Amino acid sequence: MGEAEVSLEYLYKVFTMPEGKDSKLAQIEQHLSNNLADFLSQHVVTKVNSLTQIEKSFAEYSVPESPEFVSKHAEDLLDKLVANSVNTYSPSFIGHMTSALPYFHLPLAKLMVGLNQNLVKIETSKAFTPLERQVLGMMHELVFKQPSDFYQNYLHSANYALGAFCSGGTIANITALWVARNKALPATTQFKGVAQEGMAAGMMHYGYKKMGIISSKRGHYSLSKAVDLLGLGRQQMITIDCPTQRLSAEKALAMGKQYQQDGNKVLSIVGVAGTTETGHIDPLDELADVAKELGCHFHVDAAWGGATLFSNEYSRLLKGIEKADSVTIDAHKQMYVPMGAGMVLFKDPNDSNAVRHHAQYILRAGSKDLGATTLEGSRNGMAMMVYSSLHIFGRQGYELLINQSIEKAKIFARMIQSHPDFELITSPILSILTYRLNPENVQIKIKTQSDMGHELNMELDKLTVSVQKQQREAGKSFVSRTRLQTEKYPDQAITVFRVVLANPLTTESDLQNILDEQIAIASNIDIWKKLCLAS
Amino acid sequence: MGEAEVSLEYLYKVFTMPEGKDSKLAQIEQHLSNNLADFLSQHVVTKVNSLTQIEKSFAEYSVPESPEFVSKHAEDLLDKLVANSVNTYSPSFIGHMTSALPYFHLPLAKLMVGLNQNLVKIETSKAFTPLERQVLGMMHELVFKQPSDFYQNYLHSANYALGAFCSGGTIANITALWVARNKALPATTQFKGVAQEGMAAGMMHYGYKKMGIISSKRGHYSLSKAVDLLGLGRQQMITIDCPTQRLSAEKALAMGKQYQQDGNKVLSIVGVAGTTETGHIDPLDELADVAKELGCHFHVDAAWGGATLFSNEYSRLLKGIEKADSVTIDAHKQMYVPMGAGMVLFKDPNDSNAVRHHAQYILRAGSKDLGATTLEGSRNGMAMMVYSSLHIFGRQGYELLINQSIEKAKIFARMIQSHPDFELITSPILSILTYRLNPENVQIKIKTQSDMGHELNMELDKLTVSVQKQQREAGKSFVSRTRLQTEKYPDQAITVFRVVLANPLTTESDLQNILDEQIAIASNIDIWKKLCLAS
Repeated sequence: MGEAEVSLEYLYKVFTMPEGKDSKLAQIEQHLSNNLADFLSQHVVTKVNSLTQIEKSFAEYSVPESPEFVSKHAEDLLDKLVANSVNTYSPSFIGHMTSALPYFHLPLAKLMVGLNQNLVKIETSKAFTPLERQVLGMMHELVFKQPSDFYQNYLHSANYALGAFCSGGTIANITALWVARNKALPATTQFKGVAQEGMAAGMMHYGYKKMGIISSKRGHYSLSKAVDLLGLGRQQMITIDCPTQRLSAEKALAMGKQYQQDGNKVLSIVGVAGTTETGHIDPLDELADVAKELGCHFHVDAAWGGATLFSNEYSRLLKGIEKADSVTIDAHKQMYVPMGAGMVLFKDPNDSNAVRHHAQYILRAGSKDLGATTLEGSRNGMAMMVYSSLHIFGRQGYELLINQSIEKAKIFARMIQSHPDFELITSPILSILTYRLNPENVQIKIKTQSDMGHELNMELDKLTVSVQKQQREAGKSFVSRTRLQTEKYPDQAITVFRVVLANPLTTESDLQNILDEQIAIASNIDIWKKLCLAS
Repeated sequence: MGEAEVSLEYLYKVFTMPEGKDSKLAQIEQHLSNNLADFLSQHVVTKVNSLTQIEKSFAEYSVPESPEFVSKHAEDLLDKLVANSVNTYSPSFIGHMTSALPYFHLPLAKLMVGLNQNLVKIETSKAFTPLERQVLGMMHELVFKQPSDFYQNYLHSANYALGAFCSGGTIANITALWVARNKALPATTQFKGVAQEGMAAGMMHYGYKKMGIISSKRGHYSLSKAVDLLGLGRQQMITIDCPTQRLSAEKALAMGKQYQQDGNKVLSIVGVAGTTETGHIDPLDELADVAKELGCHFHVDAAWGGATLFSNEYSRLLKGIEKADSVTIDAHKQMYVPMGAGMVLFKDPNDSNAVRHHAQYILRAGSKDLGATTLEGSRNGMAMMVYSSLHIFGRQGYELLINQSIEKAKIFARMIQSHPDFELITSPILSILTYRLNPENVQIKIKTQSDMGHELNMELDKLTVSVQKQQREAGKSFVSRTRLQTEKYPDQAITVFRVVLANPLTTESDLQNILDEQIAIASNIDIWKKLCLAS
């Protein structure tokens, strides 16, 4: 029953010889090629199964003893896995940053695996190494706009790297702050540098009590991972309240000065260009000046918003990013590349040498092996996906995609505002917004009876959680939720729906359906009924 | 000329509608499907171009302004990139751990991108989350063999993780040592733990001067990255000489005791199961006892050798691995999964909580989101590739593949030994070996005139480098090189050819051709001619 023969001859075939065109796996491929958009369905899930039900299909914990035929396995995969996955391509999946991808990435994925390059060293990647360096150069120029002789000198130099490809924004942020830390505690005649001697010795040598990072409360959670990992400690992740969703340069400067007066050292100011929760952009230009005054590194986490630089109309929102020391951009977000394409870019090509390392069998001094300055070791050829996207879309194509996302978010904001029972919480700066269900009478009550606000908001929080979960479980559409402090309710974090309009195929009518569904779900919830009756 | 129209309508098509079957990208796919083994050629490179030549094709540093048609771009890609990549599928590419993959990964790669799941959270992965947990469970059971109630309790528990998927062995090793560090400097009534307060405070609180890791000199370079990143400092990477290629448990214990007597703390003993350079396996069983005696973490880097556990015949080589606290295994090595499938496994399911983190919009307390205990954030559905491989090969299939690799390495070792002008340097334990060209007369001379050894070895080093480079550049086959200290030449590191017999399709005749080619290359090199004349 589906068991394959255990022989080397059979296994060699598994390496070289595809099954016939009628095999299940070939059929899946064909279906993917013929009609990508319809592969799953227009809905977010194909099967409405609970996680507990799904877990039953994945409960076995021993490695299967015997081989299974590929076609037999492919059927299982369709049934157990694919049918129970999330359709991130669905136009009504607007809750997270993961979305539909252009079709050309499917054959490219096959090509990438068919070539199976390893970018850690040239010996296993050859042309992929200059390709990756070129992509880093293009993104570097997009951000930092250095003169042409800069790129002629550094693009393919063995002694420098303009940045690093990595699996995602988290590794990119960690790499940037790793470089910053090693530069902040450098070698002297008495000290070999923090990379060699470690944090305890470094802090003692330089006489710092603590070393910390300043960002707004909307900074990504990877920053807390970074301060933990790098030995600064999570308490030194200094986050500043931001009811406006933007880091106040004034507060950052005051906080940084006080911190340093107390005998501590600010490692880096981190500005966010497109916060995960609301899409806001910190005042990068002013924060660059703050970092300068504090004498610290300036990192910009543009994992989400970096692609806005392709748009002549909206790139001004990121003014000052060119003053950053390092910038994170995820190509798997608004550049529509498959998951796993993070990048960190360093303004100064020498910065990546703060984490340079060598080994005898690879990464020898003088080689152009990219692995010498990356946090990761072996890496796949994902840079090809970014390269192809940059060519197939071009700057103009990306500009159109970015502009339409932002404009769609503005339209959705107006739809929410014009509905009496919805409340827009944060307006879209990029293509992210937050809102909640809030019956008209309750909105008035909160406005007129401010002493009731706290209690009503707590009821509304429960409602939002309940509606979000029910909508997710129904599987037709998906919005996410988060908790925020806002200007309107500065003393109380509230729970809100969060929408990311990344999928270019999402239409206004999809958005209208999502609002209608939320009203319909709410109307069956007791809190909603009670709130609607409140006067 | 290849420029596409800049309109939203065109861009929407790029998202949804594949080009016709005659398009270049479809042709590439078809070629890949029809005859994977022959896609490039049997050689290691298709075009013999120097890196400097190739770099000219990747010299542009500005993002292209206009979109390019997919077919036009695909032609460029074939010409500039694919033809100049390295054929890691070639049976004569035996220099690194990257090799041919079974064909089913090509359609699966397409499926993975077609689904574009993000494993950081269930909301963007659904069934992929229990699948990934299951794969971690299967690998955990393979290594640690816990009773069934253990897996029933922990496999799908929101409060525990049996390990973490990650992009590769480097992140896996770093994650393991991050967990170890946070456990070694835990919270007390006066101290909130190193994760919260950082390394300087932690070392002071516990009164440690330094904190270090002990491994043999053959430990992977990712360990040095880890001690840098984690704030221990590269000087605290304590490597012990190992002319036998294995870490001596006795030396490790003596070194560890001395280190701790000096007021320092050993963070972890790291045993290697399959060193990158020679494939040797440290005495894991004894090292487990050393770690116990020192009161420290015991990590096993089995990135390469872990898959040996599938083999009933050879798994005994890894005896003691079940006593480790954490183990690294790369599925993209001897499990023949595409690049990007690293895993770290924790014996104690509570260990991953030492690095647990939460965020408001995802990873909420009580959720089963895998991202709460991973170093990386967004991750793709690579776990599906491992899941499918475990089913399609089964334990028995992997056993055959592992056994034939080791046996082929033994055959190759005999071929080298029986040739008068080659010298076997390290015998294969797993499927890796090292050797060098060394004319018979020189071998005798080194043996009989020990005072000449140093000088002759230096000449032979130059020869090895020269032959390795010329063979690589000729593009028919590829072996790598490294520098090693060995039992035979304990006072002098020597340069050697390094061979990894990972590709199941490599035949004895391929191996014979590689030796013949090396002799042919050498015979045109002056050092060789001079050495052959030496008496």
